[in-house]
Amino acid sequence: MRFFSDNAAPVCPQVMTALADANVLDTAYDGDAWSAKLDGALSDLFCTDVAALWVATGTAANSLALAALCPPYGAIVCHRDAHIQNDECGAPEFFTHGAKLLLAEGDGAKLSAEAITALLDATRDDVHQTQPHAISITNATEYGLVYTVAEVTAIGEVARARGLKLHMDGARFANAVAHLDCHPADLTWRAGIDALSFGFVKNGGMSAELLVFFDPELGKATRYRRKRAGHLLSKGRYLAVQILAMLEGDLWLANARAANAGATMLAEAAGDRLIHPVEANEVFLRVTADEAASLRALGFDFYDWGPGEARLVTAWNHTPDDIRPLADAIAAL
Amino acid sequence: MRFFSDNAAPVCPQVMTALADANVLDTAYDGDAWSAKLDGALSDLFCTDVAALWVATGTAANSLALAALCPPYGAIVCHRDAHIQNDECGAPEFFTHGAKLLLAEGDGAKLSAEAITALLDATRDDVHQTQPHAISITNATEYGLVYTVAEVTAIGEVARARGLKLHMDGARFANAVAHLDCHPADLTWRAGIDALSFGFVKNGGMSAELLVFFDPELGKATRYRRKRAGHLLSKGRYLAVQILAMLEGDLWLANARAANAGATMLAEAAGDRLIHPVEANEVFLRVTADEAASLRALGFDFYDWGPGEARLVTAWNHTPDDIRPLADAIAAL
Amino acid sequence: MRFFSDNAAPVCPQVMTALADANVLDTAYDGDAWSAKLDGALSDLFCTDVAALWVATGTAANSLALAALCPPYGAIVCHRDAHIQNDECGAPEFFTHGAKLLLAEGDGAKLSAEAITALLDATRDDVHQTQPHAISITNATEYGLVYTVAEVTAIGEVARARGLKLHMDGARFANAVAHLDCHPADLTWRAGIDALSFGFVKNGGMSAELLVFFDPELGKATRYRRKRAGHLLSKGRYLAVQILAMLEGDLWLANARAANAGATMLAEAAGDRLIHPVEANEVFLRVTADEAASLRALGFDFYDWGPGEARLVTAWNHTPDDIRPLADAIAAL
Amino acid sequence: MRFFSDNAAPVCPQVMTALADANVLDTAYDGDAWSAKLDGALSDLFCTDVAALWVATGTAANSLALAALCPPYGAIVCHRDAHIQNDECGAPEFFTHGAKLLLAEGDGAKLSAEAITALLDATRDDVHQTQPHAISITNATEYGLVYTVAEVTAIGEVARARGLKLHMDGARFANAVAHLDCHPADLTWRAGIDALSFGFVKNGGMSAELLVFFDPELGKATRYRRKRAGHLLSKGRYLAVQILAMLEGDLWLANARAANAGATMLAEAAGDRLIHPVEANEVFLRVTADEAASLRALGFDFYDWGPGEARLVTAWNHTPDDIRPLADAIAAL
Repeated sequence: MRFFSDNAAPVCPQVMTALADANVLDTAYDGDAWSAKLDGALSDLFCTDVAALWVATGTAANSLALAALCPPYGAIVCHRDAHIQNDECGAPEFFTHGAKLLLAEGDGAKLSAEAITALLDATRDDVHQTQPHAISITNATEYGLVYTVAEVTAIGEVARARGLKLHMDGARFANAVAHLDCHPADLTWRAGIDALSFGFVKNGGMSAELLVFFDPELGKATRYRRKRAGHLLSKGRYLAVQILAMLEGDLWLANARAANAGATMLAEAAGDRLIHPVEANEVFLRVTADEAASLRALGFDFYDWGPGEARLVTAWNHTPDDIRPLADAIAAL
Repeated sequence: MRFFSDNAAPVCPQVMTALADANVLDTAYDGDAWSAKLDGALSDLFCTDVAALWVATGTAANSLALAALCPPYGAIVCHRDAHIQNDECGAPEFFTHGAKLLLAEGDGAKLSAEAITALLDATRDDVHQTQPHAISITNATEYGLVYTVAEVTAIGEVARARGLKLHMDGARFANAVAHLDCHPADLTWRAGIDALSFGFVKNGGMSAELLVFFDPELGKATRYRRKRAGHLLSKGRYLAVQILAMLEGDLWLANARAANAGATMLAEAAGDRLIHPVEANEVFLRVTADEAASLRALGFDFYDWGPGEARLVTAWNHTPDDIRPLADAIAAL
Repeated sequence: MRFFSDNAAPVCPQVMTALADANVLDTAYDGDAWSAKLDGALSDLFCTDVAALWVATGTAANSLALAALCPPYGAIVCHRDAHIQNDECGAPEFFTHGAKLLLAEGDGAKLSAEAITALLDATRDDVHQTQPHAISITNATEYGLVYTVAEVTAIGEVARARGLKLHMDGARFANAVAHLDCHPADLTWRAGIDALSFGFVKNGGMSAELLVFFDPELGKATRYRRKRAGHLLSKGRYLAVQILAMLEGDLWLANARAANAGATMLAEAAGDRLIHPVEANEVFLRVTADEAASLRALGFDFYDWGPGEARLVTAWNHTPDDIRPLADAIAAL
Repeated sequence: MRFFSDNAAPVCPQVMTALADANVLDTAYDGDAWSAKLDGALSDLFCTDVAALWVATGTAANSLALAALCPPYGAIVCHRDAHIQNDECGAPEFFTHGAKLLLAEGDGAKLSAEAITALLDATRDDVHQTQPHAISITNATEYGLVYTVAEVTAIGEVARARGLKLHMDGARFANAVAHLDCHPADLTWRAGIDALSFGFVKNGGMSAELLVFFDPELGKATRYRRKRAGHLLSKGRYLAVQILAMLEGDLWLANARAANAGATMLAEAAGDRLIHPVEANEVFLRVTADEAASLRALGFDFYDWGPGEARLVTAWNHTPDDIRPLADAIAAL
């Protein structure tokens, strides 16, 4: 059983069925019936008028968002361990035409309003330093922590007070909402979020991610930028249907709850070995090289995450029966 | 019946089946078993060692190719009516970081070695003018014409003599090969092509296009550029399987032959109305506004292509029975 | 005597004196007393509040202007023979991050409101084509023609009606104003110009050009872009003093009148040989290779401008006595 | 007396004289007699064949160098306090098209081979992380420390071992060479430097900095990039003459020695107040707000450099008589 990545999981059956059902002639690009429903469906979900654009990757969603929020000569505050800083091969710099990422710190890849304020205060207000125009936070974070509504709201207040835009990398937004059991509006625009990268692929989708602008005007230029970045798929309807299928009956939340539950089982088994609290679907463990080897000998695969550390990721399709053997093996170490 | 675009056609059943078959856990990004087969499968097809990278759109394939072939301060020669010039919202400029497209002319969006040479000769060799580093041709062209092996070879010789790289936008490469009934190697690297955008989506795929470098070394940096452009899909295996399914048993050629045959039927019916010879799956007709309206009244949809002109595009799934009513209607105008 | 280029002329004595007078300690970058005077001096000259930024080259002025007026995913309409298209090695594409130049035509590198309108009408309003955001005209043009106030106003009306910004490349703005004997405000913002590249170097300066925004708000981001492009000189005061010296007593106009007068003398001598009307300080002649050789044998240097054509450029320091021998030699051909 | 910045100092008389002497007609851009001498003059100075390009700012020199050494999808290792990171408004990102700066640490803005190695070792070798292609060090550093020949050589060895290029930001290269009393070749290419930003403006020049490539081939594309960035001045000869004047009789070294001597006098007066050793022309002091105020009351101006810290910069034109009053005032605090 592999616990490398939620990207390794298969596509959930409802998405496969929806793709098959949609396999008829329709208009190219985003002129089809399914794509036309997205703005409405997401506006309903978030209880406000949004602009919702499908793209094929979270990297594209994040980078298009940042390009909409920060000019080329500006800067974006993010965590030192943010995916946009470490795992996208400079995509934010590519899409923003060279905006700079300013790196703040915090446990578990989580930023506080205070840490952001300190970084902003340290920037001289002159033409020699790149001036911050946006903040980007990841929820759930790269280490599986979840920003609460109050925490996002505090950061949103800093953003508004400084005239900055606020982006949420929600590759695991579903896991965060499932963990908090909150309304998605409360965790986003009501807390000050301007743009959300809403992830579906790690959560059971095939190739559709969503970029949501809570002020539709903000997203206007992004339709051009998406095309220009080669992200306006010729048969875009096959992306739209994935998202619609996952919104149907709150499948996105059900899938995320399943993944979170798996991680929680592992966390309970891990006890003191946990490096970070487990609030989403990632588990970071302290294990010796021997212990890691013994787990692998039992057929469990995962990433070594630095010396003496392992990362285990659960997915939408992990059942308790899938998880139990690993939980038992961890407890028995 | 809609003849707007081959992008409007559905996905062919073999691709749908392959997607379902591949819907199991595997490694993320391009670390999976299917993606690993691409270099080999395409090397076999082209009888030479190639680097083959899946991407989600033809625009991405074209632009990544151009970024590999031309530096930011250089220029790319293409036709005034090229897709890369008119229909990609500046994607080549985005991916190349501002290289300039130098526009040459020729009937039916087709360039000749002579036209290219004349343009090159008109460029001063100094630091004030952007210097050409690459040539890009589209085969089949935007107006459905096909470059023969001899024509590509002549352009390849100009490229080599001038130290330029040569790209082929093959969004309808399959239609060109089907029309010529030639070996794909003869139409590409043996004729001097360095990089090929090999289209699958218009030809029955869902979301997978391929970028082929005939010198694998040329493609090395492109693996970074692909990630950086947000085109390394998290579950890339669902792209790889589409391509493998279409290579299987030369489905790509069978599909293209079907589309070409439909266009040929229409061309025969159109006679003197044809604006361009029909060599692939696009038909450009002279029709009055009244004639266009009468065709539409019969249930046929297509693009107006300037005043008094219409564009009809056939697809892999058009049978003779699908085409005949339109052919008859055109003949009866 | 060399008639290659007004860039080859020396620096006028008033500028040299001003540089010497300013050679004292002052604040770095643009924090000095001279730089602080520019906004005011130019606002006085143009009878409206402007933002005026020195830069070291016309290419920088043009490109910074275009970056302020057009987003990366947009397009700029200019003449096929515009300096920004042919002579700046892609600088507009660099500074705008890949905006596209859309090329219109017109005699003598001069655009008409009609030609611009026709080009705009030919652009589809969708995300596949780069959408025009700005127009750039050169006054005096690359062939020495001058747009009248009425002509600029007509283009300004097209710009306003279409929601486009309007830039004037005024590398030889002084020559245009001198020729028209008009108020500089009438040729610029009153006619709809948003940003002017105001040239001083060809007109007797050493290394200072000026970028003028007629809406100061438009220029705000440009202060960051200038720094980021390496164009905020450490000792910027040595640029500011050049400009102030040339504004003093309308030296800029006196210098331009002198250069224009020289060109007029040559034009009168050239008669039917003129390829374009001579309205500024450039003269384009029909001469055979033998005639060109005979002029060179007499000690006159100039550019061959295509077969059978020569370009002669006069400068601020050419006196009638300098010009007469060449005028006589041309008349005697 | 102002000790804000060496950029605030006037231009040294030899440069002013050279500018006046050169004020005659010559070829535009870099086609003149003076510009033609640069490659040779610098090759002589460095005892190896170099390509030497004038530009107007150190920011342009640094950024053009980095663009030559690192592709858009790569990364450059530099110090957290490097000028290229903090004081150029993102110019490296602009010129490199978005390469990422990877920040290492070390006292006094100085990197060690060990710190660089640790940073390189922490970068995963995959397409998700931007891969380092270059290292940039500043000599003298932003805090006035000087890398010795041995220290640069150690970093050069890391660079070579890892296949990275090595850039030296030498805004105060003259001060470093003067301090070390070494041969400029030993501190540059013999130690592994590929490109040097050789500063003249802070050291008595007006507007000319120099970019030196120790492998002339490396600099070839830079001639295009310089034009494209608007840094090919129309009357470039006025930059070339500044540099030639400062090379004449080693004026560049004499000026740097004078500035260094002034800083040394201040350092001796400052004693325990020194935050960093004084090895060039910058002095960083611990002073209370009251002490700073009392110095200012005596007519000395300088930057507050964070709470309780002041930065004093001496220049080529500071004589011992200029410095003594400040030294006495510091000693008397």
